[in-house]
Amino acid sequence: MERLRAKIRDIPDFPTPGILFKDITPLMKDPSAMRLAIHQMLHPFLGERITAVAGMEARGFIFGSLVAWELAVSFVPLRKPGRLPHRTRSNSYDLEYGTATLQVHEDAVGPGDRVLLVDDVIATGGTALASCQLLEDLGAEVAGCGFLVELGFLKGRDRLADYRVHSVLQY
Amino acid sequence: MERLRAKIRDIPDFPTPGILFKDITPLMKDPSAMRLAIHQMLHPFLGERITAVAGMEARGFIFGSLVAWELAVSFVPLRKPGRLPHRTRSNSYDLEYGTATLQVHEDAVGPGDRVLLVDDVIATGGTALASCQLLEDLGAEVAGCGFLVELGFLKGRDRLADYRVHSVLQY
Repeated sequence: MERLRAKIRDIPDFPTPGILFKDITPLMKDPSAMRLAIHQMLHPFLGERITAVAGMEARGFIFGSLVAWELAVSFVPLRKPGRLPHRTRSNSYDLEYGTATLQVHEDAVGPGDRVLLVDDVIATGGTALASCQLLEDLGAEVAGCGFLVELGFLKGRDRLADYRVHSVLQY
Repeated sequence: MERLRAKIRDIPDFPTPGILFKDITPLMKDPSAMRLAIHQMLHPFLGERITAVAGMEARGFIFGSLVAWELAVSFVPLRKPGRLPHRTRSNSYDLEYGTATLQVHEDAVGPGDRVLLVDDVIATGGTALASCQLLEDLGAEVAGCGFLVELGFLKGRDRLADYRVHSVLQY
């Protein structure tokens, strides 16, 4: 995976001092590396019954919609409040300072659906956990969570202990 | 295109009273309709030299990254201020009330690039025009603008008179 690792750019002190941000735009600029990344993300779930891929606004829209495309299943956008126009279900979760809320359309998934959650990066796992709960609240089963980058020192995997977690690049 | 039109849901009074919102989540839920939509969006540009596809946050990330994937070219995210971690170029533009700003990484595209701009909906064309200007500001050429839905009564096409505009569904 060194070929993929070379496409992740470290940006010091973004968005705040002391944070080393993993910039994935060089990867998105390289279509063959992007193809490798997406296929590495979905590979452990090939051959399983997956009916939908869910992705969180905004970078999760990029990786989620591509994984859904390759698996030829539904794409379910998980959005910030007020962005989805139809009837929604919400889940709020704690951040380091304050709280955040995710919404999903009530008719996005339901009983019988088996959903793969996709995002570019797993950090503390708070957003991913809230997303899994939201999908289960609609009656769907979570098949697993696929990430390109895992910031292991933040122990997000521990918060997702109830779910199958796959990441392509570990830091 | 009636098959695609059936997947666009009208939501009255969203986000504000009097607006009839075009909800594209039913389309994203249907992978074969989505495949048709993406291929209809890129079809007029097949066979041309395109080096990158640019998409605006957030729904443009979904359609833009899929068009880029199918064309096997770079994907360039155009983002709200403060979201891109590296050196950026900005362009501000007028909205009905107030202004908005789009940013792009300075190293996203440059001279020699020929970029297709992609979004789900063209309304007044203000965001698309600002995006084209931003790409040109970096030295790239705009090959055209591809949209799934065109709200013709808002005359966005007139604001993009300097560019080639293609839409799949007109309302």
